[in-house]
Amino acid sequence: MNNKKLPVAVLGATGSVGQKFIELLQNHPWFELHEVAASERSAGKLYKDAVNWIQSTPLPEKAAKLIVKECKPDLESKIVFTGLDASVAGEIEENLANNGYYVISNSRNHRFDKDVPLLIPEINPDHLDLVKAQKRSGAIVTNPNCSTIGLALALKPLQDKFGIEQVNVVTMQALSGAGYPGVSSLDIIDNVIPFIGGEEEKMECEPLKIMGKFQDGQIEDSDFRISAQCNRVAVIDGHTETVQVKLKKKATIEEIENAWREFSALPQKLDLPSAPLRPIHYFEEKNYPQPKLHRNIDKAMAVSIGRLRECPLFDFKFVIISHNTIRGAAGGAILNAELMKDLGYFKNL
Amino acid sequence: MNNKKLPVAVLGATGSVGQKFIELLQNHPWFELHEVAASERSAGKLYKDAVNWIQSTPLPEKAAKLIVKECKPDLESKIVFTGLDASVAGEIEENLANNGYYVISNSRNHRFDKDVPLLIPEINPDHLDLVKAQKRSGAIVTNPNCSTIGLALALKPLQDKFGIEQVNVVTMQALSGAGYPGVSSLDIIDNVIPFIGGEEEKMECEPLKIMGKFQDGQIEDSDFRISAQCNRVAVIDGHTETVQVKLKKKATIEEIENAWREFSALPQKLDLPSAPLRPIHYFEEKNYPQPKLHRNIDKAMAVSIGRLRECPLFDFKFVIISHNTIRGAAGGAILNAELMKDLGYFKNL
Amino acid sequence: MNNKKLPVAVLGATGSVGQKFIELLQNHPWFELHEVAASERSAGKLYKDAVNWIQSTPLPEKAAKLIVKECKPDLESKIVFTGLDASVAGEIEENLANNGYYVISNSRNHRFDKDVPLLIPEINPDHLDLVKAQKRSGAIVTNPNCSTIGLALALKPLQDKFGIEQVNVVTMQALSGAGYPGVSSLDIIDNVIPFIGGEEEKMECEPLKIMGKFQDGQIEDSDFRISAQCNRVAVIDGHTETVQVKLKKKATIEEIENAWREFSALPQKLDLPSAPLRPIHYFEEKNYPQPKLHRNIDKAMAVSIGRLRECPLFDFKFVIISHNTIRGAAGGAILNAELMKDLGYFKNL
Amino acid sequence: MNNKKLPVAVLGATGSVGQKFIELLQNHPWFELHEVAASERSAGKLYKDAVNWIQSTPLPEKAAKLIVKECKPDLESKIVFTGLDASVAGEIEENLANNGYYVISNSRNHRFDKDVPLLIPEINPDHLDLVKAQKRSGAIVTNPNCSTIGLALALKPLQDKFGIEQVNVVTMQALSGAGYPGVSSLDIIDNVIPFIGGEEEKMECEPLKIMGKFQDGQIEDSDFRISAQCNRVAVIDGHTETVQVKLKKKATIEEIENAWREFSALPQKLDLPSAPLRPIHYFEEKNYPQPKLHRNIDKAMAVSIGRLRECPLFDFKFVIISHNTIRGAAGGAILNAELMKDLGYFKNL
Repeated sequence: MNNKKLPVAVLGATGSVGQKFIELLQNHPWFELHEVAASERSAGKLYKDAVNWIQSTPLPEKAAKLIVKECKPDLESKIVFTGLDASVAGEIEENLANNGYYVISNSRNHRFDKDVPLLIPEINPDHLDLVKAQKRSGAIVTNPNCSTIGLALALKPLQDKFGIEQVNVVTMQALSGAGYPGVSSLDIIDNVIPFIGGEEEKMECEPLKIMGKFQDGQIEDSDFRISAQCNRVAVIDGHTETVQVKLKKKATIEEIENAWREFSALPQKLDLPSAPLRPIHYFEEKNYPQPKLHRNIDKAMAVSIGRLRECPLFDFKFVIISHNTIRGAAGGAILNAELMKDLGYFKNL
Repeated sequence: MNNKKLPVAVLGATGSVGQKFIELLQNHPWFELHEVAASERSAGKLYKDAVNWIQSTPLPEKAAKLIVKECKPDLESKIVFTGLDASVAGEIEENLANNGYYVISNSRNHRFDKDVPLLIPEINPDHLDLVKAQKRSGAIVTNPNCSTIGLALALKPLQDKFGIEQVNVVTMQALSGAGYPGVSSLDIIDNVIPFIGGEEEKMECEPLKIMGKFQDGQIEDSDFRISAQCNRVAVIDGHTETVQVKLKKKATIEEIENAWREFSALPQKLDLPSAPLRPIHYFEEKNYPQPKLHRNIDKAMAVSIGRLRECPLFDFKFVIISHNTIRGAAGGAILNAELMKDLGYFKNL
Repeated sequence: MNNKKLPVAVLGATGSVGQKFIELLQNHPWFELHEVAASERSAGKLYKDAVNWIQSTPLPEKAAKLIVKECKPDLESKIVFTGLDASVAGEIEENLANNGYYVISNSRNHRFDKDVPLLIPEINPDHLDLVKAQKRSGAIVTNPNCSTIGLALALKPLQDKFGIEQVNVVTMQALSGAGYPGVSSLDIIDNVIPFIGGEEEKMECEPLKIMGKFQDGQIEDSDFRISAQCNRVAVIDGHTETVQVKLKKKATIEEIENAWREFSALPQKLDLPSAPLRPIHYFEEKNYPQPKLHRNIDKAMAVSIGRLRECPLFDFKFVIISHNTIRGAAGGAILNAELMKDLGYFKNL
Repeated sequence: MNNKKLPVAVLGATGSVGQKFIELLQNHPWFELHEVAASERSAGKLYKDAVNWIQSTPLPEKAAKLIVKECKPDLESKIVFTGLDASVAGEIEENLANNGYYVISNSRNHRFDKDVPLLIPEINPDHLDLVKAQKRSGAIVTNPNCSTIGLALALKPLQDKFGIEQVNVVTMQALSGAGYPGVSSLDIIDNVIPFIGGEEEKMECEPLKIMGKFQDGQIEDSDFRISAQCNRVAVIDGHTETVQVKLKKKATIEEIENAWREFSALPQKLDLPSAPLRPIHYFEEKNYPQPKLHRNIDKAMAVSIGRLRECPLFDFKFVIISHNTIRGAAGGAILNAELMKDLGYFKNL
């Protein structure tokens, strides 16, 4: 049935997110990697010669033999996953979308365009409707920052049941989030870097759009306030976040745990290939979750939560873990494309 | 002038804090290591045979040749530094203090005794007066938890100038704080452990006693509220803490930075041997302070602060670093003893 | 078909090798985990309460609910995998084997018993015949030290084609080889420990028995000489070994690479469930193999080799990687049991 | 007496070796940092703005305020320390030496020029005489690769007393040896990289020149053979090397240990400021030396050795540690300059 799979391209294919796309698309039931594209420097080479493959599974043989193309609108695949650097993504994505391509982007450039959904399928699948208002022959759909996704998933059931007034989050983020080569070993072994450029700003506004209300063709942002502090730690994969929340309605520990445990949404109902069985796994152990132990749960697409307890300053505090390059980047973008396919966005391809 | 130095004993001498005492007491101008004591298992052995020395400076030759004694009131030195495990410290310290010894303790057992000062010489030197009320022939003086000391030092100038209403702190704590062997390498390499037993409770109450008001012979705790979340990260030495504060009086960024920069206290005035030249170092660099770079500043006795900025939920947020086994344990205790000597507490020894 | 699986017990079930047995036996097609046993301290508890589970896959639900038994000959399963500490393994294993149990051991105690095979199915399956000479109602079969297995597999094709005169090996060994809690984080972060107790001795003699000739009912050790130097490094899983060899017959680089690439043996022919498709993977990349990238190749049961080049002192030098707790311990032992089952050793069970 | 210090320049001042020069020259009794120079990109800036200071001591204030110059022969200081990248060092150093500068180089480019000494003051101070044959108005003096220095120092006493026939060395090298940013954290945390470009070749030939005989105005290389295998491990500073030697004359363990313990040379006799009190420290502990514990011994200028034992293939094996960026780079170069000053090479400056 290979011939029925939809051909897709990966842009920024040599970068760390691009590699993760290629790893995850291997054996995908609906999509088939048909083209890879990257900067001029790589274009024209065999992918295996252009890439410094750093994943811990072997480079898929089919991808290895692809010739790297340029990021221009002469690609054959109409669905393109982009893991491009923000310095070039804006223009390339715009150009492709205007030429009939469906751009499933992991870059930050268009996240706050009024007509571009900032999509997490478990949270705001209705935002996809924004695409219809895009004055493009194709479309752009984005997913949020790697540190936002886990947080937003943990907050969604609380917003639904109790309402949210304030969110305070401190992150301990993994190295793979900085790309490759990214953080120098001399900077992080035996160290913490209490700063990640632009990250706190993203975390303080992205959840408000994602969890906003879609009506009359536009998104009204949520109105709770967020304060974020972002740190880099010596972890390969998996962001850890300590979170404090103030809710609108009174809630008990038990009610919140249940809200998380029972949370299930459209991707689970549609049984999308990359959807986790349960978006949220709650742990009772006093020292869980931990990135090394829990980042890969449920295909690395679930969020792990633990240590829910009352807080002297907010209502509650807890800890979350999510895989930053799978749920928080390439895997999240693929789930977005799966939702689009299932809802008929690709039916003419 | 060696013969004029005061002889001291180190209890729990084979443990990690005990070792740090011995390292720091080497060449001390006022105190001379005269005895080491430890558990029965070690007693009777040469110190060098009893200890698994893990410091990165060589084991001092004089200490190496001492015979390990038991932690009993037949020690010759009347000043004893204790790095004992909390499971045994309470009784041993009580017993010694009742037999005329000055117990300078790093253990948690007596920190909240009504008549025992929880001392940071830059903050509450007046609390030492509590000692006079102790119904012991000797005395017990304690220093706070390693994660509390840096926080309290950073807060003190703010309390003095602006008053404090709320403090929110998330820590990323070093491995040496867990003693030796402490945390297994399998648990922490490529990982974060979002839990440290008893630590959050200590951080939420110790600063209130330390920064409390001493009057009518007793301490009235400060009344601000603290929420703490404590994490273990793969750093050898140096606790990193992200802090948020709500102040009683309006303050500007500049006023706060000045309050920190100008902060100087009794240990600086008395020029105590272990006192840092400046208790607080403020950094302008956007990604400072960092434990690897700043833990050793000013003999590892200063607190480094940076990233002061406004907070959407509190008034301000910032980052602090302090050395957990020096300022936060052995070095802090030695500074306590230096203050006591300078103020005449040891004049009859 | 579950009811046709052979019931097995895991002894030392709470330790790190024991946990790995339980993880690998999950969904095994031939064996079913029926019992767990451990020290008196754990006996009587639910396994989930007795164990500090440190694997990165979740504790299998069935195992979680087993009651931990004692390591005595009243176990129901006649096949027992042992990951016992060497301080107790000798006697327990002897006792079980004398009472009709097939003891598949990962401990060192009986490895050099004259009638006990030191088994690597790709190398010396014929040594299993030794079992018939054992004066026990059951039997003991051992697998070698974790650092020996990779080395012996890499040497086997060279021995077969060219003969071996000398082997020089320097290891950089993973932390999981030391068990749990094993190596303190304070000892190994930013450090190398150039010593592992007993390890060099094992590496200098085990390969000689494994690669020895079985005739007239006994094993004649191989006669080449080995020098080993063993180091502990900050790697979670996967031993790296730099190897130099002097051969009996002249060989070219190409001939050796071909010998490795073509190597296939009985477990591959029998298609045993845990057998790697190819026991050896050779890499052309100049900086391969690496433990993080290659330890999991072929179910973590293959050896990765690279950097074959001429040596100014020996004939050749190269680098090998193998997974120390899977191929080098639990996985290797399970492969031993699979070979025994396939060859009919368990037909009466 | 500041005005009597010799002014010096550091070239490649923003790089990691350059920074180490600046750190070590602070408070040097004979030399005063007068100028810093670097690439065009940095030239013209204040040093503090041009450098990403990664040392764990603060940037010296005087250096901070220097204007970075270009690496051209209009520097005022006649003594220049160079930590330049090998891609540019060759030409720049040649040009400076031809214009009257004394170039004390840490780069590899001129190490094998027939008239350039490859200098380790404890080993071959007589090689400095080569300088007189240089057809330059100034001179070039080089120090060896960071991994060579420790090895050569350990071998020297053995060569003197017993003669050397073969040397086999496997290294586990620190990250700081790769410069900054150097090795990506994603490549080395939880990993070993068994390859360092060009390193094995350097280790197999540099010791032969250093330990060669100087006569009739030229150096006759030593004739023993070396095989080297070089690995990168997750250590910040300090190279660990496992060494095997075959000697020309029979020796006992005791004789070798004594040869190391008694070893003292010209820098010790002249009491040069950067000379270690003892070039070699031998440890009896079975698991010593270790980079974290011993890299800083004797101002980080000594070599630590341990684990001397007989070897089944060579005569003896042992382990060495030395600080790669101090003894193995900047500190070694400064010691070279101190020797030159003491021997009168700078008397006209």
